[in-house]
Amino acid sequence: MDDPLNLVLFSGTDDKLQAAAVLTAGAAALGKPVNLFLQYWALDAFRTDRIETDHGLSAEAGAAGRVAVDALRDAGQASWAETLRQAKDLGEVDIQACSLSMDLLHLEPTDLDPLVDGVEGVTAFFLAAGDGHVVFI
Amino acid sequence: MDDPLNLVLFSGTDDKLQAAAVLTAGAAALGKPVNLFLQYWALDAFRTDRIETDHGLSAEAGAAGRVAVDALRDAGQASWAETLRQAKDLGEVDIQACSLSMDLLHLEPTDLDPLVDGVEGVTAFFLAAGDGHVVFI
Amino acid sequence: MDDPLNLVLFSGTDDKLQAAAVLTAGAAALGKPVNLFLQYWALDAFRTDRIETDHGLSAEAGAAGRVAVDALRDAGQASWAETLRQAKDLGEVDIQACSLSMDLLHLEPTDLDPLVDGVEGVTAFFLAAGDGHVVFI
Repeated sequence: MDDPLNLVLFSGTDDKLQAAAVLTAGAAALGKPVNLFLQYWALDAFRTDRIETDHGLSAEAGAAGRVAVDALRDAGQASWAETLRQAKDLGEVDIQACSLSMDLLHLEPTDLDPLVDGVEGVTAFFLAAGDGHVVFI
Repeated sequence: MDDPLNLVLFSGTDDKLQAAAVLTAGAAALGKPVNLFLQYWALDAFRTDRIETDHGLSAEAGAAGRVAVDALRDAGQASWAETLRQAKDLGEVDIQACSLSMDLLHLEPTDLDPLVDGVEGVTAFFLAAGDGHVVFI
Repeated sequence: MDDPLNLVLFSGTDDKLQAAAVLTAGAAALGKPVNLFLQYWALDAFRTDRIETDHGLSAEAGAAGRVAVDALRDAGQASWAETLRQAKDLGEVDIQACSLSMDLLHLEPTDLDPLVDGVEGVTAFFLAAGDGHVVFI
């Protein structure tokens, strides 16, 4: 259990980010270090001016999925950003933005929510991942 | 090869579920235990009243993809649910519903197809996963 | 670092294929062997007559995402196919088409770009994967 869990977040819809946040919180609760590497549309969702906005759902969610997600949120479910903040308080969670995706989206580190700890390339991500699982979401 | 293969199923479209079923059957044929953890739209597809219905394809499949998938099915390809049943007969395959997603979709265990062995939280999933790979589909 | 990185490519949109190519190149640069296993819509994108065409983006990319991807490409970013070719020059990268998906899409090996090294079943993929990570994209 000492190897980190390494999540490459690609998708930026609220359902996939929530699934990623739950996996992160579960691993952190077990004392497992977690590295998140933000690419593409997931990185876009961590912009300071967007992190609390609605990022939509996967296309397959449909209208019934939208209603279900909204109902759970109205019942008090924490957002994925809140869940990640709690996971950071609980355990060893490091969140890095992919440098190539920073270029793609014309972002500077100051554009990102404080949840993001830094910017790195894919080689640095693999070195930090070590022998731990790599999961693409 | 003693560590289990651990698949987090998030997507509920027939193409991704078929890909997951093929990976499950392949691992089971090699004697590898497989744990499936059903979240969100994948869990919805395992409802007793929906498991045999059409769950659509990924948006990117398009009309040509739809034709290809239907043609293979008409030629006798087993559905993903049938493939999972065969994998369970063949090897050690455990299918658990994510408790958070059960709440999201307002489901009770009796709403799910007998393929599903139980309901558990993400921490129990990680403990069962042990040192085996975690794959998100 | 001797275990291979094993990527199951399912999605055939240019953004996901680019993400996969970057992970491949990063692992190859670190001296890690990489196995790619092409299924469904990803396999379709490796057809000789389609590999250089536009394969679209994930539905969630939207119009702003399209503009960002095109701008980076216009600025000289290598395509995912070029990135994979460079990774093959740099390290040990093996690309196999899934035999079931070859049937689905009615493809013969001669229909595929020379980047693809062969066709194999899922059991062969798992045997080649050994103890290395399995990542589904």
